[in-house]
Amino acid sequence: MADIALSPTARSTIRRRKERAVIDRAVLYRILDAGLVCHLGVIVDGAPLVLPTGYGRDEHTLYLHGSTGAVSLGNADGADVCVVVTLLDGMVYARSVFHHSFNYRSAVVHGIARTLADAEKMHGLRVITEHLAPGSWGHARMPNPKELAMTAVLALDLTEASVKVRAGGPEDEDDDAQVNAAWAGVLPIETRWGTVIPDAERPPAIPPPSHVKRRAGATLYAWE
Amino acid sequence: MADIALSPTARSTIRRRKERAVIDRAVLYRILDAGLVCHLGVIVDGAPLVLPTGYGRDEHTLYLHGSTGAVSLGNADGADVCVVVTLLDGMVYARSVFHHSFNYRSAVVHGIARTLADAEKMHGLRVITEHLAPGSWGHARMPNPKELAMTAVLALDLTEASVKVRAGGPEDEDDDAQVNAAWAGVLPIETRWGTVIPDAERPPAIPPPSHVKRRAGATLYAWE
Repeated sequence: MADIALSPTARSTIRRRKERAVIDRAVLYRILDAGLVCHLGVIVDGAPLVLPTGYGRDEHTLYLHGSTGAVSLGNADGADVCVVVTLLDGMVYARSVFHHSFNYRSAVVHGIARTLADAEKMHGLRVITEHLAPGSWGHARMPNPKELAMTAVLALDLTEASVKVRAGGPEDEDDDAQVNAAWAGVLPIETRWGTVIPDAERPPAIPPPSHVKRRAGATLYAWE
Repeated sequence: MADIALSPTARSTIRRRKERAVIDRAVLYRILDAGLVCHLGVIVDGAPLVLPTGYGRDEHTLYLHGSTGAVSLGNADGADVCVVVTLLDGMVYARSVFHHSFNYRSAVVHGIARTLADAEKMHGLRVITEHLAPGSWGHARMPNPKELAMTAVLALDLTEASVKVRAGGPEDEDDDAQVNAAWAGVLPIETRWGTVIPDAERPPAIPPPSHVKRRAGATLYAWE
């Protein structure tokens, strides 16, 4: 499956700016693995609802989680959903307003979400936790039955997706470049983990574990 | 209008984690003004479609833009849409997996989008440009008729929105804090504009203008 090109359907086939479309499953996975939060779109009472939520990937499955009370998750089970991960890499200044752009990497995944239970649910929670906070599964206390009942975990097969990547400098019209009256270039966007802040209200009895410490100062959203 | 509380409708009333809900129009505007990219949700062929896009705010109106060829924008005119801006501020490590969380600021806006034309369209483009790249409107070449025809600009009234803000340390169960076997605290997420990169392919004839230079190294997504 890792060798199968993405986007077999009309809605996931990118029609505009085809140079930015990427039909490569490996790039989809790199974007999903580099991101932290996705935007989940569902239909509620005939209107679109979009909410940010954490996720994780294991092989060809995307796992999402949230409260069982969340309207978005309740409406997602067995329904068409759209999950988007967007990584913003920079602002592209062009010589025309029209050619201003972002550098970015984005993945738009379509599919039918299913709510997980039992061992599958626990596996999904582990994948999400280890994606968002690597090392926390096994360090922090595991979910108890009450907490599990309060948590909904959804799975989505990674079979239908649109992947777009824009990188590099501005793409100006030749006329504009010849006149050259405006500045053109890129301002990159850089995201980093900051300094470790221990819980001030109830100071932890142990120093920051290596799985937290090693993250501090590291670049976020980078390609692996 | 600035004094009117948000969320008069059922779908925009936050039912869970009420301590994180903010019913204050000023906070909505601060989030929108601090972000760069939104996620626009529309319904296409009965399924949700979510796409990242640039936006800008002027008073009580949100402006979005994109190609006239984009399915998302074509389906948004006169239709229910959902626009989300999410600012990720940190990872919250708790003593239990369940209480792990993000620090974040998010705005979920609901409404009927309308496509703009003529002077309104140009105004919307100016608002979006000056939000994404302040100083570019008036410095870069203005859109010509052909470019305007290729650009769709949508407006959305800011009347119905859910705003959530989570900040601070973990909210552990007392039992977990007493056992205190796991580390608890926060790793902040810090986003900055990087160093100015002039167009290498066709070097600009002028040095970076002040509206670009002053952005370099500055913090992104901060409260104003």
